[in-house]
Amino acid sequence: MQRKYFQNLESYAVATELELIEVTRELGFNEHGLIPVITQDATTKEVLMLAWMNQDTFTETLRTGYVTYWSRSRNQRWVKGQTSGHTQELVSLSIDCDGDAILCQVNQKGAACHTGRRHCFYLQADNQEHTVRVVSSQPTTQKS
Amino acid sequence: MQRKYFQNLESYAVATELELIEVTRELGFNEHGLIPVITQDATTKEVLMLAWMNQDTFTETLRTGYVTYWSRSRNQRWVKGQTSGHTQELVSLSIDCDGDAILCQVNQKGAACHTGRRHCFYLQADNQEHTVRVVSSQPTTQKS
Repeated sequence: MQRKYFQNLESYAVATELELIEVTRELGFNEHGLIPVITQDATTKEVLMLAWMNQDTFTETLRTGYVTYWSRSRNQRWVKGQTSGHTQELVSLSIDCDGDAILCQVNQKGAACHTGRRHCFYLQADNQEHTVRVVSSQPTTQKS
Repeated sequence: MQRKYFQNLESYAVATELELIEVTRELGFNEHGLIPVITQDATTKEVLMLAWMNQDTFTETLRTGYVTYWSRSRNQRWVKGQTSGHTQELVSLSIDCDGDAILCQVNQKGAACHTGRRHCFYLQADNQEHTVRVVSSQPTTQKS
């Protein structure tokens, strides 16, 4: 969804700086006050997971340097790894051209996925065979 | 959001195959019938964009081998690159542990971003400085 504020930024020169507080206010949070966040391993570039932030956890992530989401199932703040130790140390946080998606590059400790897998995308479609295949197995330990 | 169907898959062995039609039916489309899709360059592993699919464009993507989204702003099917030539040839399509996010690895032709940039995440937050910085400039050509 294109937003006027972000359309205005498109032609800005490299290294132009905007106030973080101003950009945060303009982010495209949805009707539930949430924005989707892609989390990628900063070293391997593997996409680890997709989760959600609200304005508070977005700010909290930047303030603490550790990724903090909003858990839609528990309806509460979710400091990734707080119980499991599988923290995500923030390396960089980027915002997309429409201001309605976030990309976090992180140093992932342990497993990103609640199943204990390194990443969440373990089901792969094969349209030739009309199947979906399990491409990595669940380790014995788990918990996100 | 955890879904019973996907919870049941967690302990399945590697190479287990499920019917694509069955998994498609169980996907966690939101109240607008949409699911978020992360698109990643299959070679460089760069995250290119985040967009949305409905059930039809999900199926269409797998059938044609070219990524097709649902455009929320135009409220219509969006065959990526149909007007610009900046197509996304599908290399793999994966589903996450909760069945509510998709990861497409693609061969990206030209720019993924409507601003003409290679990828959409060109605004980077710097919490030390309380700024957001433009990290890549807009080429002269554009259109997604």
